[in-house]
Amino acid sequence: MSAIDELITEFAKLPGIGRKTAARLTYFLLKQPTEASRRLATTIEHVAERVSPCSVCGNLSEVDPCEICTDPRRDGSLLCVVEEASDITAIERSGEYRGLYHVLGGRLSPLDGIGPDDLRLQALEARVGNGTPVREIIVATNPSMEGEATATLVRGVIANPAIRVSRLAQGLPVGGDLEYADAVTVAQALTARREMSS
Amino acid sequence: MSAIDELITEFAKLPGIGRKTAARLTYFLLKQPTEASRRLATTIEHVAERVSPCSVCGNLSEVDPCEICTDPRRDGSLLCVVEEASDITAIERSGEYRGLYHVLGGRLSPLDGIGPDDLRLQALEARVGNGTPVREIIVATNPSMEGEATATLVRGVIANPAIRVSRLAQGLPVGGDLEYADAVTVAQALTARREMSS
Repeated sequence: MSAIDELITEFAKLPGIGRKTAARLTYFLLKQPTEASRRLATTIEHVAERVSPCSVCGNLSEVDPCEICTDPRRDGSLLCVVEEASDITAIERSGEYRGLYHVLGGRLSPLDGIGPDDLRLQALEARVGNGTPVREIIVATNPSMEGEATATLVRGVIANPAIRVSRLAQGLPVGGDLEYADAVTVAQALTARREMSS
Repeated sequence: MSAIDELITEFAKLPGIGRKTAARLTYFLLKQPTEASRRLATTIEHVAERVSPCSVCGNLSEVDPCEICTDPRRDGSLLCVVEEASDITAIERSGEYRGLYHVLGGRLSPLDGIGPDDLRLQALEARVGNGTPVREIIVATNPSMEGEATATLVRGVIANPAIRVSRLAQGLPVGGDLEYADAVTVAQALTARREMSS
């Protein structure tokens, strides 16, 4: 196999990238200065070598514990439970959250053979029991069927009645269009409607 | 910038890959064994270091002249002119062509500032004049406005009346659906209709 074919094959292993896109990426790189390809290669290697899950929360980081876990300005009594480390970025971007995180490393999905034992639930229980007392756990699993099932599972794991367990609100996305919203979202937005102050 | 953000930025430089897709690719790699990322990085480097344009035809190859130019079973009197080296793969896949190639390295595109001087036209003229006499030149530029203009330009460059210059046929794509074909393609298919033998 030629070097070009090899690279097309490697690119095509990435999610959402078929052989045609993989070929386009390969030929794009070939049109760039060698330096561009080398920088991409080096960056991929750096990430592979330097980034690993934080032993406390499961966030992906170059240091252990991660920057969020060791940030003294963060509220250690607040824990946000997410499915994947990539979900942390979305919540951080909102600028609305200053607590810590706990990455489950997936979601309940019997069809894919992912059960409760495959999620970092024991680590969550241990964290809630030790150190700074946890005041609230925000369950930020995805608003999908698997995410809901996972949220219920997390809820069941938190036995301490002093800890508030909440779930991200569901409703119309901001800037969305009612006309194009799906029926389930509209139903959810109706059920969870909030009173307007006069 | 963290290693993760750096890789997201690098991926986002690739065509058709926005920041969200770049983040998905990055987190996908982080979920794979380190070996997978390392293999991707090495392959990218190999391509950058080993692959370069063939000095004869412009095809991208690890050897110079490329495998096609040096293949003795190929018909040297037949030349297929393409815009990019990646177009060669498409023609090779058809299994219908056993001649040589000539890569222009682009197409006429005044809006992008690409004029006749940016295409490998002089190299084409030189090739047609030297070595094995060329019998036919198949102009396989894209069936787009720029491709057509480029084809006309190539036609003008071939002064020798003994050389046949042809263009790839245009019409309905095989396996396509007349109902969904665009009007220009249908018009083209009508104009270029072929008599059926009885």
